[in-house]
Amino acid sequence: MAKIIDGKALSKSVLEKIRQELNDFKAIHSNFRVGLAIVQVGNRDDSNLYIKNKLRTASDVGIEAKHLKFDRSVHQSTLIEEINKLNSDPRINGIIVQLPFDSENEIDSDLIVNTVSPNKDVDGLHFANAGKILHGQINDAFVPCTPKGCLELIKSTGVDLKGKNAVVIGRSKLVGSPMANLLKLSDCTVTICHSKTVNLPSVCRAADILVVAIGKAKLVTSDWVKPGAIVIDCGINSIKEGEKNKICGDVDYEDVSKVAEWITPVPGGVGPMTVTMLLANTLESAKRYYTSFEIDTQWKCS
Amino acid sequence: MAKIIDGKALSKSVLEKIRQELNDFKAIHSNFRVGLAIVQVGNRDDSNLYIKNKLRTASDVGIEAKHLKFDRSVHQSTLIEEINKLNSDPRINGIIVQLPFDSENEIDSDLIVNTVSPNKDVDGLHFANAGKILHGQINDAFVPCTPKGCLELIKSTGVDLKGKNAVVIGRSKLVGSPMANLLKLSDCTVTICHSKTVNLPSVCRAADILVVAIGKAKLVTSDWVKPGAIVIDCGINSIKEGEKNKICGDVDYEDVSKVAEWITPVPGGVGPMTVTMLLANTLESAKRYYTSFEIDTQWKCS
Ligand SMILES: NC(=O)C1=CN([C@@H]2O[C@H](COP(=O)(O)OP(=O)(O)OC[C@H]3O[C@@H](n4cnc5c(N)ncnc54)[C@H](OP(=O)(O)O)[C@@H]3O)[C@@H](O)[C@H]2O)C=CC1
Ligand SMILES: NC(=O)C1=CN([C@@H]2O[C@H](COP(=O)(O)OP(=O)(O)OC[C@H]3O[C@@H](n4cnc5c(N)ncnc54)[C@H](OP(=O)(O)O)[C@@H]3O)[C@@H](O)[C@H]2O)C=CC1
Repeated sequence: MAKIIDGKALSKSVLEKIRQELNDFKAIHSNFRVGLAIVQVGNRDDSNLYIKNKLRTASDVGIEAKHLKFDRSVHQSTLIEEINKLNSDPRINGIIVQLPFDSENEIDSDLIVNTVSPNKDVDGLHFANAGKILHGQINDAFVPCTPKGCLELIKSTGVDLKGKNAVVIGRSKLVGSPMANLLKLSDCTVTICHSKTVNLPSVCRAADILVVAIGKAKLVTSDWVKPGAIVIDCGINSIKEGEKNKICGDVDYEDVSKVAEWITPVPGGVGPMTVTMLLANTLESAKRYYTSFEIDTQWKCS
Repeated sequence: MAKIIDGKALSKSVLEKIRQELNDFKAIHSNFRVGLAIVQVGNRDDSNLYIKNKLRTASDVGIEAKHLKFDRSVHQSTLIEEINKLNSDPRINGIIVQLPFDSENEIDSDLIVNTVSPNKDVDGLHFANAGKILHGQINDAFVPCTPKGCLELIKSTGVDLKGKNAVVIGRSKLVGSPMANLLKLSDCTVTICHSKTVNLPSVCRAADILVVAIGKAKLVTSDWVKPGAIVIDCGINSIKEGEKNKICGDVDYEDVSKVAEWITPVPGGVGPMTVTMLLANTLESAKRYYTSFEIDTQWKCS
């Protein structure tokens, strides 16, 4: 039976590290603060839930999160104005735009996401951050939270990634594509698959590391998986079980557990890591800002 | 024996189309002009040769190319100033920075490349253009010239790319990484390999389309290639043959020709397409600028 990669436990320990590091910084620099702004348009139930979770977790680690909730009638130009204010507000280190919008008006989500300063784009969705990922310059980029979390989950198994065959199913800009690039930068040989892939099960069977991000409940079964593989399941699908709705992944967990060496459960795998990585990115942003400011001050004094 | 993908011939016909299209535009809009600026620092022999070629080919198709050659002693700040002038010059539609620099001073090439306006970055090296490639939004991006040329060469065989297995050897930001993303956007299942790949020949043998961009003379031999594959060779390597220096690719052309169905020669394959794609991007930039200006004018008049 596969060992479980416990995303909840890993997430907890990373959050504790973030809290600790933030406090250590504060102890030395009393004015050190970390601020996150969450921009929402409208009132989708799922968005409300996600945002509540982000606000609570931020507060738990000492990050000051601010929720800007705009009415469904808000205009694109107002949003741009407000984001520009956040861009120039030194108390805000991270800005995220909760998608999809719930809006009466036409809002270009690409334009809005790219209005966020790349230096505060802690969701890693700005073209400039995506470009740095493609170019392999991730040290001063922000990496999208779900693939960043997946990589941490994979690393937590202790496996040496160099030269491993990794297969990613899904090529979205949010998950699949940045994931494939992160694995490439970790020295894996990476294959990226999607709905046009021929013989998908047999491509997957060559994977030492299989990351699944497709949005189809339990599609991946044991005959798709090489014995001993690491399987990371990004899927969040709602299925009916009797009268109740249940959340499940893109991987048939029970079945795949029989052949994989490591597997993430859903819930409790990738999900918790996503929010945690958002806060890790926000702290990182604050540290970069503070460091550049420090260097700048030293330079001006010298 | 493999059929040759003749990059010289394809390049010639694309250049003819560019010339024709430019003239057609001019016939309708008498003030339509296309301008390209090439920024060079120092006096490297190879750079001089490449630039001479670009200037000549641009002029052949009716693109007005301007060569800004700075002394080895130029400072980064001057370069930034000059590029900003080009950014705001309406007669310039494309700006390329010839790399590597030959300079006495420290110049941050990433900073310089990213000083070029993304709308004039016809080499496709700005982070914003790279990000659009990762995100699959290439219609308003500029795609780097070598991978763009490789894709045209592959398409010229008439093969349907959907669902094909493509393998790219090389993960550089200039060639391998954007190439893998372009093939992904063309609905191939794509594997990206590099120096840490294990069993490289066997990975390559699964490829219907094999793109090689490693910089190692004749590394790829027939036993790496699936019978019937398309093989694209980006390599430009100088080797000694007797007393003379000769240019060869990363693929052992004689040997691989025996098993591949299609193959690009070196020279005469990828090389000529690279300059051609630069001019295609420059024309595209002019058309975008002109169209946005036209829309803007119409809008103001209405
Ligand atoms: N845990 C978390 O915090 C997060 C979880 N998710 C979850 O991850 C999953 C993927 O999300 P996202 O990337 O945004 O989804 P998208 O819908 O944007 O992308 C899905 C990808 O899967 C591919 N695909 C769909 N069906 C198949 C199939 N039958 N075989 C092979 N490939 C297929 C699609 O291919 P094609 O491109 O050809 O259409 C596409 O590339 C979802 O379940 C989502 O809920 C997402 C974000 C965060
Ligand atoms: N025709 C044209 O106009 C152009 C041609 N070229 C040519 O294309 C080739 C590649 O260029 P470029 O991408 O810029 O080169 P880079 O040196 O930047 O990248 C080479 C890539 O090949 C990989 N590699 C090197 N050796 C091996 C090996 N033995 N096995 C597997 N992978 C290997 C490297 O892996 P790792 O990342 O692990 O180091 C790296 O990813 C060169 O020959 C260059 O001259 C380039 C640009 C334009």
